[in-house]
Amino acid sequence: MSRTIAILTGGGDCPGLNAVIRAVVRSAILQHGWRVIGIEDGFDGLVGTPRWRELTLDAVRGILPRGGTILGTSNRGNPLAYPVKTEKGVVLTDVSAQVVANFRALGADALIAVGGDGTLKIARRLQDLGMPMVGVPKTIDNDLRSTDVTFGYHTAVEVVTEALDRLHTTAESHHRAMVVEVMGRDAGWIALESGLAGSADVILVPEIPFDLAAVCASIENRRQSGSRFSIIVVAEGAYPLAGGKVVQATAAENLGVERLGGIGTFVSREIGTKLDIETRVVVLGHVQRGGSPVPFDRILGTRFGVHAVELIAQTRYGRMVALRGRAVVDVEISAAVDALNRIDPGGELIRTAEALGICVGR
Amino acid sequence: MSRTIAILTGGGDCPGLNAVIRAVVRSAILQHGWRVIGIEDGFDGLVGTPRWRELTLDAVRGILPRGGTILGTSNRGNPLAYPVKTEKGVVLTDVSAQVVANFRALGADALIAVGGDGTLKIARRLQDLGMPMVGVPKTIDNDLRSTDVTFGYHTAVEVVTEALDRLHTTAESHHRAMVVEVMGRDAGWIALESGLAGSADVILVPEIPFDLAAVCASIENRRQSGSRFSIIVVAEGAYPLAGGKVVQATAAENLGVERLGGIGTFVSREIGTKLDIETRVVVLGHVQRGGSPVPFDRILGTRFGVHAVELIAQTRYGRMVALRGRAVVDVEISAAVDALNRIDPGGELIRTAEALGICVGR
Amino acid sequence: MSRTIAILTGGGDCPGLNAVIRAVVRSAILQHGWRVIGIEDGFDGLVGTPRWRELTLDAVRGILPRGGTILGTSNRGNPLAYPVKTEKGVVLTDVSAQVVANFRALGADALIAVGGDGTLKIARRLQDLGMPMVGVPKTIDNDLRSTDVTFGYHTAVEVVTEALDRLHTTAESHHRAMVVEVMGRDAGWIALESGLAGSADVILVPEIPFDLAAVCASIENRRQSGSRFSIIVVAEGAYPLAGGKVVQATAAENLGVERLGGIGTFVSREIGTKLDIETRVVVLGHVQRGGSPVPFDRILGTRFGVHAVELIAQTRYGRMVALRGRAVVDVEISAAVDALNRIDPGGELIRTAEALGICVGR
Amino acid sequence: MSRTIAILTGGGDCPGLNAVIRAVVRSAILQHGWRVIGIEDGFDGLVGTPRWRELTLDAVRGILPRGGTILGTSNRGNPLAYPVKTEKGVVLTDVSAQVVANFRALGADALIAVGGDGTLKIARRLQDLGMPMVGVPKTIDNDLRSTDVTFGYHTAVEVVTEALDRLHTTAESHHRAMVVEVMGRDAGWIALESGLAGSADVILVPEIPFDLAAVCASIENRRQSGSRFSIIVVAEGAYPLAGGKVVQATAAENLGVERLGGIGTFVSREIGTKLDIETRVVVLGHVQRGGSPVPFDRILGTRFGVHAVELIAQTRYGRMVALRGRAVVDVEISAAVDALNRIDPGGELIRTAEALGICVGR
Repeated sequence: MSRTIAILTGGGDCPGLNAVIRAVVRSAILQHGWRVIGIEDGFDGLVGTPRWRELTLDAVRGILPRGGTILGTSNRGNPLAYPVKTEKGVVLTDVSAQVVANFRALGADALIAVGGDGTLKIARRLQDLGMPMVGVPKTIDNDLRSTDVTFGYHTAVEVVTEALDRLHTTAESHHRAMVVEVMGRDAGWIALESGLAGSADVILVPEIPFDLAAVCASIENRRQSGSRFSIIVVAEGAYPLAGGKVVQATAAENLGVERLGGIGTFVSREIGTKLDIETRVVVLGHVQRGGSPVPFDRILGTRFGVHAVELIAQTRYGRMVALRGRAVVDVEISAAVDALNRIDPGGELIRTAEALGICVGR
Repeated sequence: MSRTIAILTGGGDCPGLNAVIRAVVRSAILQHGWRVIGIEDGFDGLVGTPRWRELTLDAVRGILPRGGTILGTSNRGNPLAYPVKTEKGVVLTDVSAQVVANFRALGADALIAVGGDGTLKIARRLQDLGMPMVGVPKTIDNDLRSTDVTFGYHTAVEVVTEALDRLHTTAESHHRAMVVEVMGRDAGWIALESGLAGSADVILVPEIPFDLAAVCASIENRRQSGSRFSIIVVAEGAYPLAGGKVVQATAAENLGVERLGGIGTFVSREIGTKLDIETRVVVLGHVQRGGSPVPFDRILGTRFGVHAVELIAQTRYGRMVALRGRAVVDVEISAAVDALNRIDPGGELIRTAEALGICVGR
Repeated sequence: MSRTIAILTGGGDCPGLNAVIRAVVRSAILQHGWRVIGIEDGFDGLVGTPRWRELTLDAVRGILPRGGTILGTSNRGNPLAYPVKTEKGVVLTDVSAQVVANFRALGADALIAVGGDGTLKIARRLQDLGMPMVGVPKTIDNDLRSTDVTFGYHTAVEVVTEALDRLHTTAESHHRAMVVEVMGRDAGWIALESGLAGSADVILVPEIPFDLAAVCASIENRRQSGSRFSIIVVAEGAYPLAGGKVVQATAAENLGVERLGGIGTFVSREIGTKLDIETRVVVLGHVQRGGSPVPFDRILGTRFGVHAVELIAQTRYGRMVALRGRAVVDVEISAAVDALNRIDPGGELIRTAEALGICVGR
Repeated sequence: MSRTIAILTGGGDCPGLNAVIRAVVRSAILQHGWRVIGIEDGFDGLVGTPRWRELTLDAVRGILPRGGTILGTSNRGNPLAYPVKTEKGVVLTDVSAQVVANFRALGADALIAVGGDGTLKIARRLQDLGMPMVGVPKTIDNDLRSTDVTFGYHTAVEVVTEALDRLHTTAESHHRAMVVEVMGRDAGWIALESGLAGSADVILVPEIPFDLAAVCASIENRRQSGSRFSIIVVAEGAYPLAGGKVVQATAAENLGVERLGGIGTFVSREIGTKLDIETRVVVLGHVQRGGSPVPFDRILGTRFGVHAVELIAQTRYGRMVALRGRAVVDVEISAAVDALNRIDPGGELIRTAEALGICVGR
């Protein structure tokens, strides 16, 4: 049975998106003889006048090693709360009925939505409205619980680890404390794993509110045993204990975290002041999100894409592909959202870090 | 209780060995206050006059990002069949009693042996002789069944994928068939995964004896649809069907495979002859075994090292550390050897490759 | 004639310093049979109690591919204005006599000083005081006029170019303006060359005070021709024209440049405000200074090191090694300092950038 | 004055070709308002039915970081000796008149030919026949004398250096002699510079016929001073002295060089036999020619492209662009061909290598 399927990519950039698109197109065309339509700029492309293009084999040629997404992703995004200009100003409106109508007009049998928690929530809602959806999870931060890991994350860890390797030699030559702020608002996986891979001395993650005194003591400790430099990796969502209690996000801002340009700058300043040590801060920012994916992410994106097409072939809608151990499986989209994958403060990875003498902020 | 533990690395080079050594030394010293001894050149360092050195924190400083092993590995190796010069020439002799005696003389409480199937077999034998052993699995080829994966493998896949990325542009500019021979004598994981990541058109692995006619047909097919180049990845242990039947290893040699310098050269020549297409062959060789490990391998080696020390702390000897899903676990060394991890010709990865239009030789 | 020579590294970190040290040690020992002493932490190691170590062949083994300097560099630095604690507080004092005395006590015949303009000025002064000096130029910014280029610069350009490659895919997927602030206080070479290599759309350098209106017009222009993203590379020393006139450094600070965390942030905010476009800023910072040098820098550092030893063999003191075209030559140290190498606003490189449609801020 | 210009790329692949094409297209269109035509597959595209395409700004978008050439290059090549099928079999025929006619029919004002010595010779001939030509030099081997260096070469050196870095750790762990055969048939620049950058112990180049006894002595020497491994870099065009005399190319083949798969294999076997040392050989092959160009090559290709367009704007035909020191200049095409750039056996680079203790085969 010949079909037409559609695909879109939503949310932040993530290396491996093109691998998914390519795998969907190739397996849909070569294995099933289907037609594939690419929706542009995430769900935005289904609001107002639809924006889409035909995805042929030629259209996806050579894109596997490339970062980003050839389909673009949305700036405005959420059709459940879409900014619509009215006489009373911009009002957030649910335009999902319009999305469904636009989708139907395309004549497509199913839509593959590649994205993070936000995108998957929209997918769930559209599925409830009768649109045949398949989800592919995407998160650079590795913060989705329904899949062991997803594409993009290992590339981000590699980018950060390479930066740490570079900073090591400078920190060592100059006897400095180098603070590196990395991505991870709710979950500190990138900080933890790249810190382990890049020989960090201190790793601060959102899951363990940090005690500044403990951090300073560990750096001072290193100094007294002859190591005159330290590498401190801080997830952007990490925050300090104050007076032994956890400081709330707003309170952290009161401490000047935001005003100074992020938690990295805050940590750098505090360490510099308390220890009379030269400090530098590096905020890696969007470099972590872009560029050619590492092989792991290319392969996982490819497997996810092929499995998503498989689900459509079996008319199993409302499912999301996922990785469990070595196997690609699928789960209910509705079960996949709202389930955050956070570091266990007492788990094996944190204990490994501490066994090596790394300070995790406590 | 203060202890002395020893560690050695055996078998072929593998990125991540230094991560294991560093983790063992740091966690043994910092967490337990133990002393660590490094045996040089694998089990060789326990034959004849023992060769070892003290492993202090300083001795392992800065080695995490470095390939190879600071302890060296063995050229002659196996103490169960050790080449001993006698009047009758070199005789392979079991010198394990000598190894045990030398180890006892060191005053060490346990020995961590990092290595592949061969090293683990020796470890099992020594454990049977009463030496307290802990195993850490190592294989660049990913061919051990007792662990989901081990360090070194992902680095090899990255090296091959980078080479494929480079070769792609040249193949495309010149309309050539490029044959790339990669490691993998018994298991084709490196060929399969780097082929998936590097957009290979043909992937030949030892698990699927290949039909040369099918390979040529797929290249010809590409040519007729306008793609005037092809990338063919061949595992060193791949071999052709002949006349519809599987050619045994010896027969493959009769086909001229060995004489011409490997299966890559054979495939290149056959394709060139049958299709009148310009072909080139690249044999990546030992480049796949060396150099700085990717973050994944640094982290896994580190976790394995810490877990090995943990096993000694719990006096759980005869065990080997392993990865299962996201967890580091341990298994009996005796159960770990002789169990090969090979690609399932009908499994998800092969089906993914075929869904993308990749020819796997059938 | 057997000699003892000394070497130190001063100023900021720079990939290739270890290549110089290794080449000096190897050629001094292997070719001349001399002894080599390494002064620690720049000229600091010759103030107070001298800090130095023997540099044997073993001491420099394996350091060629490593960033940083095994000798450390100075935090306090300048012996011509050295911070000395007195009753009246810290007073900057000329301690060069002490440096000379300490050097003489070492019994060394000559000192090779590797460093930038600051280090070379000290070397000139010490040479005037009778210390036999040889200079090796070092600047990550490529801002020394007496040598065509020096080591470290090409590594920095590669680090920035890789970051631009990564940011491109994200900017493109998200339709954003990405502002990347790179090193270059007085000279914009890193911005210009990495901008050319990394397909930047706007390149702002200290040599051409930029017209914000021209920058915005060029981005708007791209947008109207269908390119919904832009990459803007800004040297840290770049600054805006205001009202058609050049704003002095202090005035630039009045514009809020410093307060907001650098010129990159300023440019990002201004563009975002004026064009109603989403912008992001990345400040690459010290990542540009560290890590393994590219081959060019390893080779140039090596050639410089060998030539420096050659100068000592010929008792030609007060000279600095330099690159001219393909040749390693030498010049008077005194002629080398205070001569800044800046981009010619009307030169070939800027004209090349403009021919490609890159906006250079005018 | 509006013009139409054409461009083609000839000869072997070389990273940076796309940079030239992009720069030609962008500067021709944006600066001059011209039209650009891309000839496909080198001069082949002007034989028989012309094969060409319009090169718009869109056609060159995103190609700067990519290896290869979007225009393809020739397999058959030379229009001065073109294989034409006749009754008497394939006869090499001068089809340059046809090339000129085809070019004229395109209505183009000038042709930019990017290529090596062979391509430039054809360009000179066509210029003599009245076709307005501009040459851009291309050689991965750095063997053209008329330019200081050209694009592609630094990328090749980086690829080889990275491989040497990787092989070092394995050689060291296993106490092996690793022989690495690299490109360079007539000139050994890649071997020499990557050998210097990658800490080679022996470097063999075509310019210095090597004495096998000297090579073995240097490896033996290392072994006796405790270094149990060696890295030997061999240019593919290197050849041995025999009995103190230079062996001619044919004689080298008689020594079994070709039969065994190249000079690397020969050297590996000889060393292994003479020294009873474990050896391995790696032939890097076409990996050296492909993939993303390093920044230096992207920039140089870009500058060459812009200068080539400049020459056409000034109606200065018959010229070839070149690099001299820091400047892009131009020379007569006729003066540029047949002038080989070879290593000076007594020059600074070779003396630098020998000062470091590297054996260059004598």
